[in-house]
Amino acid sequence: MPQASDIRIPLDVPPGERERYRENYRRITHNTGKLMLFAGDQKIEHLNDDFAGEGIHPDDADPEHLFRIANKGRIGVFATQLGLLARYGGDYPDVPYLVKLNSKTNLIKTAQSDPASSELYHVRQVVDLRDESGLSILGVGYTVYLGSEYEPLMLYQAAQAVYQAHRHGLITVLWMYPRGSAVKDERDPHLVAGAAGVAAAIGSDFVKVNPPKIEGVADAALLQEAVAAAGRTGVVCSGGSQVSVPEFLQQLHDQIHIGGAVGNATGRNIHQRSLDEAVRFCNAISAITLDGASVGDAMSIYGGG
Amino acid sequence: MPQASDIRIPLDVPPGERERYRENYRRITHNTGKLMLFAGDQKIEHLNDDFAGEGIHPDDADPEHLFRIANKGRIGVFATQLGLLARYGGDYPDVPYLVKLNSKTNLIKTAQSDPASSELYHVRQVVDLRDESGLSILGVGYTVYLGSEYEPLMLYQAAQAVYQAHRHGLITVLWMYPRGSAVKDERDPHLVAGAAGVAAAIGSDFVKVNPPKIEGVADAALLQEAVAAAGRTGVVCSGGSQVSVPEFLQQLHDQIHIGGAVGNATGRNIHQRSLDEAVRFCNAISAITLDGASVGDAMSIYGGG
Amino acid sequence: MPQASDIRIPLDVPPGERERYRENYRRITHNTGKLMLFAGDQKIEHLNDDFAGEGIHPDDADPEHLFRIANKGRIGVFATQLGLLARYGGDYPDVPYLVKLNSKTNLIKTAQSDPASSELYHVRQVVDLRDESGLSILGVGYTVYLGSEYEPLMLYQAAQAVYQAHRHGLITVLWMYPRGSAVKDERDPHLVAGAAGVAAAIGSDFVKVNPPKIEGVADAALLQEAVAAAGRTGVVCSGGSQVSVPEFLQQLHDQIHIGGAVGNATGRNIHQRSLDEAVRFCNAISAITLDGASVGDAMSIYGGG
Amino acid sequence: MPQASDIRIPLDVPPGERERYRENYRRITHNTGKLMLFAGDQKIEHLNDDFAGEGIHPDDADPEHLFRIANKGRIGVFATQLGLLARYGGDYPDVPYLVKLNSKTNLIKTAQSDPASSELYHVRQVVDLRDESGLSILGVGYTVYLGSEYEPLMLYQAAQAVYQAHRHGLITVLWMYPRGSAVKDERDPHLVAGAAGVAAAIGSDFVKVNPPKIEGVADAALLQEAVAAAGRTGVVCSGGSQVSVPEFLQQLHDQIHIGGAVGNATGRNIHQRSLDEAVRFCNAISAITLDGASVGDAMSIYGGG
Amino acid sequence: MPQASDIRIPLDVPPGERERYRENYRRITHNTGKLMLFAGDQKIEHLNDDFAGEGIHPDDADPEHLFRIANKGRIGVFATQLGLLARYGGDYPDVPYLVKLNSKTNLIKTAQSDPASSELYHVRQVVDLRDESGLSILGVGYTVYLGSEYEPLMLYQAAQAVYQAHRHGLITVLWMYPRGSAVKDERDPHLVAGAAGVAAAIGSDFVKVNPPKIEGVADAALLQEAVAAAGRTGVVCSGGSQVSVPEFLQQLHDQIHIGGAVGNATGRNIHQRSLDEAVRFCNAISAITLDGASVGDAMSIYGGG
Repeated sequence: MPQASDIRIPLDVPPGERERYRENYRRITHNTGKLMLFAGDQKIEHLNDDFAGEGIHPDDADPEHLFRIANKGRIGVFATQLGLLARYGGDYPDVPYLVKLNSKTNLIKTAQSDPASSELYHVRQVVDLRDESGLSILGVGYTVYLGSEYEPLMLYQAAQAVYQAHRHGLITVLWMYPRGSAVKDERDPHLVAGAAGVAAAIGSDFVKVNPPKIEGVADAALLQEAVAAAGRTGVVCSGGSQVSVPEFLQQLHDQIHIGGAVGNATGRNIHQRSLDEAVRFCNAISAITLDGASVGDAMSIYGGG
Repeated sequence: MPQASDIRIPLDVPPGERERYRENYRRITHNTGKLMLFAGDQKIEHLNDDFAGEGIHPDDADPEHLFRIANKGRIGVFATQLGLLARYGGDYPDVPYLVKLNSKTNLIKTAQSDPASSELYHVRQVVDLRDESGLSILGVGYTVYLGSEYEPLMLYQAAQAVYQAHRHGLITVLWMYPRGSAVKDERDPHLVAGAAGVAAAIGSDFVKVNPPKIEGVADAALLQEAVAAAGRTGVVCSGGSQVSVPEFLQQLHDQIHIGGAVGNATGRNIHQRSLDEAVRFCNAISAITLDGASVGDAMSIYGGG
Repeated sequence: MPQASDIRIPLDVPPGERERYRENYRRITHNTGKLMLFAGDQKIEHLNDDFAGEGIHPDDADPEHLFRIANKGRIGVFATQLGLLARYGGDYPDVPYLVKLNSKTNLIKTAQSDPASSELYHVRQVVDLRDESGLSILGVGYTVYLGSEYEPLMLYQAAQAVYQAHRHGLITVLWMYPRGSAVKDERDPHLVAGAAGVAAAIGSDFVKVNPPKIEGVADAALLQEAVAAAGRTGVVCSGGSQVSVPEFLQQLHDQIHIGGAVGNATGRNIHQRSLDEAVRFCNAISAITLDGASVGDAMSIYGGG
Repeated sequence: MPQASDIRIPLDVPPGERERYRENYRRITHNTGKLMLFAGDQKIEHLNDDFAGEGIHPDDADPEHLFRIANKGRIGVFATQLGLLARYGGDYPDVPYLVKLNSKTNLIKTAQSDPASSELYHVRQVVDLRDESGLSILGVGYTVYLGSEYEPLMLYQAAQAVYQAHRHGLITVLWMYPRGSAVKDERDPHLVAGAAGVAAAIGSDFVKVNPPKIEGVADAALLQEAVAAAGRTGVVCSGGSQVSVPEFLQQLHDQIHIGGAVGNATGRNIHQRSLDEAVRFCNAISAITLDGASVGDAMSIYGGG
Repeated sequence: MPQASDIRIPLDVPPGERERYRENYRRITHNTGKLMLFAGDQKIEHLNDDFAGEGIHPDDADPEHLFRIANKGRIGVFATQLGLLARYGGDYPDVPYLVKLNSKTNLIKTAQSDPASSELYHVRQVVDLRDESGLSILGVGYTVYLGSEYEPLMLYQAAQAVYQAHRHGLITVLWMYPRGSAVKDERDPHLVAGAAGVAAAIGSDFVKVNPPKIEGVADAALLQEAVAAAGRTGVVCSGGSQVSVPEFLQQLHDQIHIGGAVGNATGRNIHQRSLDEAVRFCNAISAITLDGASVGDAMSIYGGG
């Protein structure tokens, strides 16, 4: 796994942007080569399902909650759409940002139609916003649904997003999800590895995959094939969505130390909590991801230690 | 809710356009942060259904009726298509305008095909018209049908419209309607809140939603989830379409004071009346929206007081 | 209805093109505000059905017949495709032309697929041809099939065509036809009025509609709703396709004097006759349209008086 | 029919390109106004079906065979794709070329899907190749399948191809074939005439149609309606595909002298022969087309006289 | 077959790029006119199926394996996606590269939908990477699925890729595969010949086809029709996928010496072996392809001789 001391700069970063890329990479990984990504793109992806309802803290009803967490918690980068960023970013200038370029709602199910998610913004616009606002926009992200009948459009936009982002010194994260009527088991470890490999082939710095499972059971070791297939592209994933905090942290620890992941991408598990708890949870996740902390140490941090 | 004294300028407004944005925001909200939008895009959206027929005053048969109302009544902004604006705007130079960028007819029903509405004009063209004509074009609008199979195109165009509008100092209003074969209940409060949140994620200044209902019954309190989900994006909606004037005004008052809306978007309820009555109705709506008037005071205004 | 003395120039005509627009408007309406449009776009729209067959004069087999009529007859403007214009226009430099931008054949019926008609030329190309050739190209036209599943494309292209045409001082005519599986009665007066209103909303100078009917019966008074809905956009339509000359002229007279139309768009009824008769028929139509002649006077002209 | 002495230059040829257009027209018609087009676009259109198999001379297996014929035989122009031209043209610099802009394979039958053929090259690229290579590229060609559900795309590309070609002084040939599930009888004379008329409406110099038939029987007189409908656009077609040489030449003679065609477009009938025979056959065809030779004289040429 | 001493430069290579094209051609063919292409685009095309599983050496799990082979083995060119190249190329600057422009996953089977593969990168971007990085990027590749309902898009992109590549002095390879519901037998020799001919018609330097078979049986002589049809476009193909090394080498020898192929494109057969064995296998293949070695000599090389 890449260390800050020997960051490998991909060749599609032009000479004049290499120093910016290196600096962005250092900042987004806290000089560790590891990524703690706080995912906040659900206002489109899941509508209001993740922000209001049973078991969700009332703090989460306000979109500013995401920015407050990103501002107070220890994170690598906060991923959200450009519009929300433009609206709140001015009040949170110290947060490191990543612009999620495409998004779709969850209204159309795969039984009706294969998933299609088009870019909403062009990398050039992200760069203009970065340069004019002075915000720390360090990277961009894009979701590809492999196996969808709309795969050609998404693969094209993703490859272009990575290429254009690198042209401007930005770090890239691809969300790679096999999905569509052609996909029988989205969590199959071999398929997840294939998805990670596609991200490598189109040159992304990081790839987010869903944790692989066999017969519905996740196991960190199942991630190893994907980590190998991704090569120099760092793999991140999240723990289960409905587990307890210690279980979540243990899964993350295993994904990194057994599976070979270089970090995590966590959204709902963080922001559905009160601001105070969410910040402590962020910090616990970051301790494991960035500092190599044990689950016990991370639990102490979560407990307010 | 934003006040004129502390207008928050989104970061995608470039430095050179911030003063214009601030001024447009002040004018469109009458320095109150509240929006009274007079909607006049129905000549495409509803063909002639809203302009001729039983219960519709003959004044409404002539498209100029819309401009006469906008000119005489107290409104925040009059929304219509660029073509109509180009034809009549020269005679009504004092009206504040908002160009509705996309529109579709109502001929194709959802049972036949999911709704698709493409932009008719580019923001750049609106800006050119503004600059050459000297008209007070303060903003642009766009309708998104979430859950439609054409959602990707509309989300893209909407996000781009907001971004480009802000680049030129214009205020934005998104009409956000869940619709299509995947949408079972367009008025579900949680779904309406999701729609409002999407507008926030793509950075709109205002979002128009249909009033939420549970089992067909509207209640201003049901709007609160959407208002929270929209964050700094102001929510506007309209009263019912077939209620009496006092009922309409009471609903509007409740939407603002109970639901948290920052205003209203009203079309047919205004322009299907005679010019004189329409103007008085406008003024009554504006009194509630902009001045915090009571329903009783507003009724006095409507009555010609 | 607009008179030459007070031509209203739409605001999307930029200052530098206003004089040209005014002059084009004067020429196309013979200083009357009325339009006699000779429609010659059927070589694509109807293939050879309108040019050879029973009841069609042999003169009509040659495409030059159209130009000969336009040259000798009294018309406001001759509408045809750019290609035909480029081929024959040089020999008929005094004819006033309007370029029909889109066209489709009649091979695919609505039962198979909703109608789709794409632009063949861009306004910019029409302008280049005008400026290089010195021809009197005064305007452009476009057909929209409202209610077709391809409506979004056609509405977009039509709105853009009007906008771009006005940018270059050209006059616009939109053919507005409700058609497709969603359309039950294309001639319904209320629907025809809606179609006319759409043309107004996208800013066209003139709109061509089919004469409205109730239960298959046309009546000039049925046009009044459309004329009102179109506002400052002038409505033109044609008489029936299989009536005698006096009936045709009477219908036209009624459309103008009862229905409120500002003219006519006539094709087959003119060019399926011999050159001599076609010219006389043109002149009769123009007498009614442009001079306010009675049907009797027009019949005299048709008779060679 | 146009003669070299009075070439009519269409108005979409700009002044600076008129001399080139005139010269190209002279060369492509050998100063006769008649066109002998040697069609060699079948490597995509028919895959290898026309180049190897029973009854096809082994010479035809090598694509260079086409260039050898074009080089030694007397032709007006040799039509093929740009790629093949770029590969062999340097060795055959004296051949007059026409670039076929679009092509499709014959794998998908109409029963599966309506035909769609997209342009492969832009006129601008043809012009660049012409100007850089010094080759005699005199024109471009494009095939339109009228009545196909993809007609809008092809009509647009064809109209644009003609317009752009004329902008650069190139001659145009449109292959106009009614085809698709909406087309019952592709050879119907009235329909073929309609197809020829479409080519005229979009301004092509020449149009290639399939010989019309009634109840499966061709007759040169049936072509007259198409020739009339095409006006100043010259009509070319080919003889039957499986007839003897004298029959072929007689049909061609009849198409010109009875039907009014201005030439022929012949491919397989030429290149499926040995080089020597193909050249003699070319010369026989050209004698009829360009010199007004009798069938007997042409047979002598074919016989090596 | 072309020799280095008389390289034919296609005319779409502009004068200023001819020397580069000639040099690229020399390098990619080792001055022999023959091509040994090492194919490494399977991370998208086949996901992880080719890189992990039974019978696949563990070395192949890491994408860098491909670069290590390309670096140590004797090859003409290594084909992969731009993203992977940008990530690893800097460590392997001596490898000759070819960028595969389009790719799709294997998740959607033909039974569900005809294959569609869109370009991921534009030739211009490949050229920029070449010029900025100093890497030896000698060419580009593209896959066309002939007979797919998406054939028009792919044929267009392929023709454009060849044209643009030649504009910048790059060598081109087209993968030409008949596939889709319209294709009954992808390996039919006549159909394979047609596919090779299409590559010639759009001007590619090389074409990769699958070895033709009759009733499931391959025979090098069946390739001769394709080699003839391709003309000056060099045909390459691969041996069977599940045969022993001597059988593979014999097939390759036969394809060249009996079938007339100018080389091979081999992927899985090479990289699924350990680095050492893969390198020896590369060298054996190159001996046959580039040096005209016998199968026996090649086996000695493979054996480490």
